[in-house]
Amino acid sequence: MKKILLVGSGNVATHLAQNIDNKKYTINQIFSRSKSNAKNLIELLNCYWTNDPKKIIDSDLTIIAVNDDKIKDVISFLPDIPTVHTSGNTDISVLKGCFNKYGVLYPLQTFKKSLASNLSQTPFLIEGNDKKFEQSIFELASSFSKNVTIIDSYTRKNIHLAAVFACNFSNHMIVLSKKLAERSDFDFSLLLPLIKKTFGQIDNDPEKSQTGPAIRKDLKVMNSHIERIKDKDLKKIYELISISIIKFHHGNN
Amino acid sequence: MKKILLVGSGNVATHLAQNIDNKKYTINQIFSRSKSNAKNLIELLNCYWTNDPKKIIDSDLTIIAVNDDKIKDVISFLPDIPTVHTSGNTDISVLKGCFNKYGVLYPLQTFKKSLASNLSQTPFLIEGNDKKFEQSIFELASSFSKNVTIIDSYTRKNIHLAAVFACNFSNHMIVLSKKLAERSDFDFSLLLPLIKKTFGQIDNDPEKSQTGPAIRKDLKVMNSHIERIKDKDLKKIYELISISIIKFHHGNN
Repeated sequence: MKKILLVGSGNVATHLAQNIDNKKYTINQIFSRSKSNAKNLIELLNCYWTNDPKKIIDSDLTIIAVNDDKIKDVISFLPDIPTVHTSGNTDISVLKGCFNKYGVLYPLQTFKKSLASNLSQTPFLIEGNDKKFEQSIFELASSFSKNVTIIDSYTRKNIHLAAVFACNFSNHMIVLSKKLAERSDFDFSLLLPLIKKTFGQIDNDPEKSQTGPAIRKDLKVMNSHIERIKDKDLKKIYELISISIIKFHHGNN
Repeated sequence: MKKILLVGSGNVATHLAQNIDNKKYTINQIFSRSKSNAKNLIELLNCYWTNDPKKIIDSDLTIIAVNDDKIKDVISFLPDIPTVHTSGNTDISVLKGCFNKYGVLYPLQTFKKSLASNLSQTPFLIEGNDKKFEQSIFELASSFSKNVTIIDSYTRKNIHLAAVFACNFSNHMIVLSKKLAERSDFDFSLLLPLIKKTFGQIDNDPEKSQTGPAIRKDLKVMNSHIERIKDKDLKKIYELISISIIKFHHGNN
């Protein structure tokens, strides 16, 4: 049984902890700034907790699951045991010099702390500073998921960027449509069947699912939409994305 | 049994025809520019076809299912029988003066001709120039769908605009993520579980599903993304949507 020091108590930390294979791994201790944030997790795991670097107890592996900009802070005081971070956008080399064995365990998924989720279908992108440790990370990732791939930092960061478009930006388009619904005083739930179908049909060829005035180059409809949008920022977004759709599907690409 | 003249043979025409309640309605004739486009539909329905206004035969109702910019062309020669158009973005008044009874039958859904779909969950937004005819349209729409709402033209056009964000623009974000995958030479299908979860969790509160660097105001990650994007248009889209996310979730909104 490998003992794990889990650094962080946010979305990723919570989902990893909830999905850990208890036969092979145990969360030994949580290190996080505030105990109140970690409260549910400590109760769930029945493990040690500290926010004092001096009170970190012996473990076999550290999983750093904090915001990207906090990684450098925590590695300055962590013990030199095998260590992975869970960031999509941080190079493996950030851990170099601090640890003998180090690597990356990145779950390519969107997490909200409050929503429990099974990680078995979540792609884990992993990387290790040597082949043997990489194999250990592979085994750890495989205890969460059936979808584990060894990916170098450069490619992982590009995947992270693409994920921002595929997940965060597409979600924001739906948020903006809700904003329009509220301003126009119609029930946003009218759009839910459309949203459900749009994404139900997404597969390896999303370009084939593209519909709407821009792909038809229907300038009359586009202009009537632009006239109807009061908000300047929203108007800009409408124009820019419509132009991007036209360029993508009709050349100049 | 009401006899219908169906004008058009594109996505909307095809889906309506495939879902018509054959006990109450029959597609009597299809009017479309090219017979080859309408071929499958004519075979499916075993109905008359013409592209000659003089050869339009008697029906009880006309459904105009052509692109928005073609509506004015076709109404100039259509017979004065009760007539509806199926456009989300066209005012009911476009039909005024040409028909005694007229209205709108707008299915709020994304259609690809090749994909058969059941319309029972599709919201139909309807409108009639008088209450009695509006009731007939309501009955027609109810033969397709359980989700029929009477909506005036002004609101319908706003819903259509919101639908462009919710469906077309969100889909394009996924297209752009695939483009990034191709440029960075990684397998786009790695992102499919993320996309599936992103949209699986969409409900009436999409703003609660928002994740990513922009909502965290993580400038370091955002800047590293922007640096990594080579394409100027894509860079602009990244910046504009990130700013929009920050504004929406952190004020100035």
